[in-house]
Amino acid sequence: MSLPPSPFMARALALAQAAADAGEVPVGAVIVKDGQIIAEAANAMRTARNPTRHAEMDAIQAACAALEQERLDGCDLWVTLEPCAMCAGAIAHARIARLYYAASDPKGGAVEHGPRFFTQPTCHHRPEVYAGLCEGEAAEQLRRFFEERR
Amino acid sequence: MSLPPSPFMARALALAQAAADAGEVPVGAVIVKDGQIIAEAANAMRTARNPTRHAEMDAIQAACAALEQERLDGCDLWVTLEPCAMCAGAIAHARIARLYYAASDPKGGAVEHGPRFFTQPTCHHRPEVYAGLCEGEAAEQLRRFFEERR
Repeated sequence: MSLPPSPFMARALALAQAAADAGEVPVGAVIVKDGQIIAEAANAMRTARNPTRHAEMDAIQAACAALEQERLDGCDLWVTLEPCAMCAGAIAHARIARLYYAASDPKGGAVEHGPRFFTQPTCHHRPEVYAGLCEGEAAEQLRRFFEERR
Repeated sequence: MSLPPSPFMARALALAQAAADAGEVPVGAVIVKDGQIIAEAANAMRTARNPTRHAEMDAIQAACAALEQERLDGCDLWVTLEPCAMCAGAIAHARIARLYYAASDPKGGAVEHGPRFFTQPTCHHRPEVYAGLCEGEAAEQLRRFFEERR
């Protein structure tokens, strides 16, 4: 699959790099509505001493705050790594319309791995899913981060 | 299964009832360490306009803040409803030692239903799970809440 580079994934990758520079596993996310970024975040679990502070969780909450609503109908989430079960659950709860992610996560991902959450009958909202955009760049960020910490 | 009543589940049920009185789906949660409640929360999605504000998520974050640490090793989570995928993911990330829940949730639960998250190879921490404590009382709270809103 070859897709044109997206300024939204480029921004998510920049957020991920900033997270890596701060000692966080590099994952960045942006939420887009009507072609505009309305929220963005990066992993903050270490800094915040809070295991729920994944980029997607923070971006979803920031978008809800920006729109002053509980559901993000019509919003797209761009994230540099395949979401885990926690984040996939939040994506469904928030009614995200489209999910774009870069690198796959065979160890912890919950979209195309493990629970494949959006295919479960207990999942009440399934976003459209587009995987693999800027996959090489996102995977390289992660590889470099873990190599430097070995 | 018959188990002795627990003051921790009783407190979670009281939190759930307070949530119902505020118009929230009645779910309450407490986190216990060394026999003491160190954090508690109830659903706050409607009030906060934030779909991630499930009782378990707020309780986990409050416990991390109380202990000033990212992981809740040795901590138990008592919650009135079977956790969803988002909350099950957070429970694993937080390394909760034991999960006690009251009512089953065939529609949205992720422990004994749907993804059965803790049985997945991509789940990196599995708490001990005890289900069914005060199940009747928790189920009745939920039934009454939805009946009154019909």
